[in-house]
Amino acid sequence: MDDIKQYVLDKARRAREASRALATLNGRVKDDALRRMADALEAKADLLKSENQKDIEASRSRLTPASLDRLTLTDRTVAGMARGLREIAAQPDPVGRLEGLERRPDGLRVGKMRVPLGVVGIVYESRPNVTADAAGLCLKSGNAVVLRGGSEAIHSNICIARVLSEAATAAGVPEGAIALIETTDRAAVAEMLQAEGLIDLIVPRGGKPLIKLVMETSRIPVIKHYDGVCHVYVDAGADLDVAERIAFNAKVQRPGVCNAMETLLVDEKEAKGFLPQIGRRLREAGVELRGCERTREFLPDAKPASEDDWYTEYLDLILAIRVVDGLDAAIEHIARYGSAHTDAIVTRDHLHAEAFLRRVDSSSVMVNASPRLADGGVYGLGAEVGISTDRLHARGPMGMEGLTTYKWVVYGEGHIRE
Amino acid sequence: MDDIKQYVLDKARRAREASRALATLNGRVKDDALRRMADALEAKADLLKSENQKDIEASRSRLTPASLDRLTLTDRTVAGMARGLREIAAQPDPVGRLEGLERRPDGLRVGKMRVPLGVVGIVYESRPNVTADAAGLCLKSGNAVVLRGGSEAIHSNICIARVLSEAATAAGVPEGAIALIETTDRAAVAEMLQAEGLIDLIVPRGGKPLIKLVMETSRIPVIKHYDGVCHVYVDAGADLDVAERIAFNAKVQRPGVCNAMETLLVDEKEAKGFLPQIGRRLREAGVELRGCERTREFLPDAKPASEDDWYTEYLDLILAIRVVDGLDAAIEHIARYGSAHTDAIVTRDHLHAEAFLRRVDSSSVMVNASPRLADGGVYGLGAEVGISTDRLHARGPMGMEGLTTYKWVVYGEGHIRE
Repeated sequence: MDDIKQYVLDKARRAREASRALATLNGRVKDDALRRMADALEAKADLLKSENQKDIEASRSRLTPASLDRLTLTDRTVAGMARGLREIAAQPDPVGRLEGLERRPDGLRVGKMRVPLGVVGIVYESRPNVTADAAGLCLKSGNAVVLRGGSEAIHSNICIARVLSEAATAAGVPEGAIALIETTDRAAVAEMLQAEGLIDLIVPRGGKPLIKLVMETSRIPVIKHYDGVCHVYVDAGADLDVAERIAFNAKVQRPGVCNAMETLLVDEKEAKGFLPQIGRRLREAGVELRGCERTREFLPDAKPASEDDWYTEYLDLILAIRVVDGLDAAIEHIARYGSAHTDAIVTRDHLHAEAFLRRVDSSSVMVNASPRLADGGVYGLGAEVGISTDRLHARGPMGMEGLTTYKWVVYGEGHIRE
Repeated sequence: MDDIKQYVLDKARRAREASRALATLNGRVKDDALRRMADALEAKADLLKSENQKDIEASRSRLTPASLDRLTLTDRTVAGMARGLREIAAQPDPVGRLEGLERRPDGLRVGKMRVPLGVVGIVYESRPNVTADAAGLCLKSGNAVVLRGGSEAIHSNICIARVLSEAATAAGVPEGAIALIETTDRAAVAEMLQAEGLIDLIVPRGGKPLIKLVMETSRIPVIKHYDGVCHVYVDAGADLDVAERIAFNAKVQRPGVCNAMETLLVDEKEAKGFLPQIGRRLREAGVELRGCERTREFLPDAKPASEDDWYTEYLDLILAIRVVDGLDAAIEHIARYGSAHTDAIVTRDHLHAEAFLRRVDSSSVMVNASPRLADGGVYGLGAEVGISTDRLHARGPMGMEGLTTYKWVVYGEGHIRE
C-alpha cells in the first residue's frame, strides 16, 4: 500500500517537474512530437497487437463481446490512434495566446495569456485508444498527463504509453510528461485522487460507477462527463416534417450516447398530427415507446410511462413521450426531470425559440437542430476532451481550451498603487 | 443536529428555487433592487447600529481592537455598503451576453451565452459589510446566495440580510434569493459544504484556517483566495529609481494584504547599487529586513534569512531579500518558493520581460509595475469578488464574470447528425 502511494506520487512528481518545461515548449516541437508519436504507433503496430493479445487472452472469459471488441487493437484502430494524433498536431496551439490586452486609464496594459493547467490526471476504462488520445490532447495543450487505464487493458496501455513517451522524448518533450500508472492495483486510483498540489485536474472517462467513485473520492477538481437526459420539444405550430427529422435522428442515429434524446415532449396542439407519424417511424426502427396517458390516446400500443421514465437515461432504443400544455410546461418538465445536458425546441415561433434558449438551463440549448449535434467537432472546437456536465470552468462540449487556464499579464511603466 | 441539517437544506432549496427565476430576471429589475437595497440600508442605519451594538457587547472582551473595529458599524460603514451596492447597480449586466456566435460550415449557428452559476454559498468571517457586498454581487450576476457570516456578527448580519432581502423582494427579486444562515451553530457550515446539487459554488472569505476548513470539507467546488507570497525581481540593468519606487510601494503601501511583496530578488549586478538605497528607505518606513548572505554584505544590519523565510507570507512590515544570479535564478526561486499569486520584474530588457511573463506561472505576472496593482478594479473588472489562487474557472482578480458560466446556444434549420 505504501509502495503504491510512493509509486503514484513519484509519477505525479515527475509529471509536475516535466510540466514546467512543457508549459513553454515551442508549438513546433509539440507538433513534431505528436507526428512522431503517430509514426511510432504505426511502426510498432505488431508489438501493440501482440501485447494487446495478452489482455484479450486474460479477459476473454469475463468480458461481453462488445467489451472485447472495444478492447481489441487492430491495424485499423492503431491507424485511428495515429490519425487522431496527427489531427491534434494540425490544430492551432491553444497555449500562449494573449487575449484582450487593453490599455487602462492609468496607462497600465492588462491582458490574459492562455496557459496550461499543469498536470492532468485521466482515469478511464478499458478502451486502450484513450491512452493515445488523452496523451495527445494533454501534450498539445502543454500539460503533463498521468494516465490510469482499466486493468483489462494493462498490457496494451503500457505498450502504447511507452511507445508514445519514447517518441515524444526523442522530439524534445521533457521526460515524465506522459506517465502511465503501470499497475492494476486499485489503490493507485485513490492515491491519484489525493495527489493535491501535484495533479491539477482529474478527468474521469467511463461509466457512471467510475465517475461516481472519482467524484466522491477526489480532493482534486474534477470535470466530469455524466448523464444526458436530453429532450426534444415539438412546439405548437412547428414544421412537423422538421420535427420528425430531428426527433428520429435524436433517438435513432446513435442511441447509446449521452446526447441522444431520451424524452420527446409534444405540445398538445400537435399531438394528434405528429404522434402517429413519428410513432410509426420509431417503431419501424425498433424503438420501444413509453407514453403518458395523453400520448397513449394517439399511440395506443405505447407502454404507460412511469414517473421514473422521465428521469431515465436509457442509452438504448427506448423513448419516453409526454404531451405537454405548451412552452412553459415543456420548460418546467425539462427543469424538473432533465440533466441539463442538451435540449432542443422545434418551433417556427421566434419568441418561443428565444424564450427556450434563455430559460432552459442546459449546457447546450438548440433551436430546430438535433441534440446529437452537441459535439466539439460540430461546434468547431477541434479534438474533443468530452462533454462536461459540470458548470464551472468548462461546460458542454469541451475542446483543448478546457485543459488550459489563463494568467493575467500586466505591462507597466513604473506603475504603483496610490 | 438534524434540525440544523434541515434548516440549512431548506434555505438552500429555497435559494435553488429562487435561482431559476433570478437567472432570467431583467437587468433593470436587478439594478432597481440594488438601489432600493442601498436606500434601505441607509434608511435603517439606526436599527443596524443598535443590532450591531449587541454583537459588540457580546464580544468586546474577546476581540482585539482591530477585530472590534472591523465588526463595528458606523454611519460611514453603512454609507460604504450602500455606495458599494449602487456601484454594482451601475455596472453592465454580466448575464445573457451572447459571445462569439458563428456560422459553421454546415450552416449551424453556434455561440455561448453567459448565465449565472445558480446558487453561491459564501462563508465569511466577522466583517458584516461582506453581507451586503456578497448579496449585491450575487444578485447582479443572477445568482441566489446562501450567506454564512461569523458568529461575532450574527445580530448585525441578520439585520442587514433582512433589510436587503425585504428591499429586493419589493423590487421583484424572488423570495429566498438572499438567504442568511441565522444561527451561530458551527454544524451549519458543514451542512452547507455538503449541499451538493443545491449549492453550485462555495466562496470562503476569511483567514487561512477558515479556507483550509472549507477546502478539506467541501463536496462542492470552491474558489479560494489563499496565500500571496509575491516577489519583485530587480533585473540587471533595471532603472533603479523605478525599482525603488515599485519595491517600496509593493512592501509598504499596505503590507497586510495578499498582493503585497514578501520577497525582493535582486540581480547580483545591481546588489551593490540598489540594496543600500532601498534598504535605507524600507528601514525608515519601519520594515524589518531579512537577507541572504550576499544581501547582508550590502545590508549588514539585516537579519539572516532562513529557508523558511522564502516560503513565508508575512502580511507585515517584514521583507526577505535575496541576491540571485540573473533571470533564470529569479524564475527558479519564484517557482520553488512562491505561491503563484502575483510576481513582478523590473527591467529594461525586452527579452527578459517577455521571458518572465511567459515562464513565471502566477495568476498575475507584471513588468515594471507593483504587485499591489493585482486588483479587479485596476484591471477593469468592476466590483471584485476576490483574488482567486485557484487555477480552474477563475484565476487572479475575479470580477462578477467569475460568478457566471456559459451555455452553448445553437440555431439550426432542421439540422441533424449525419
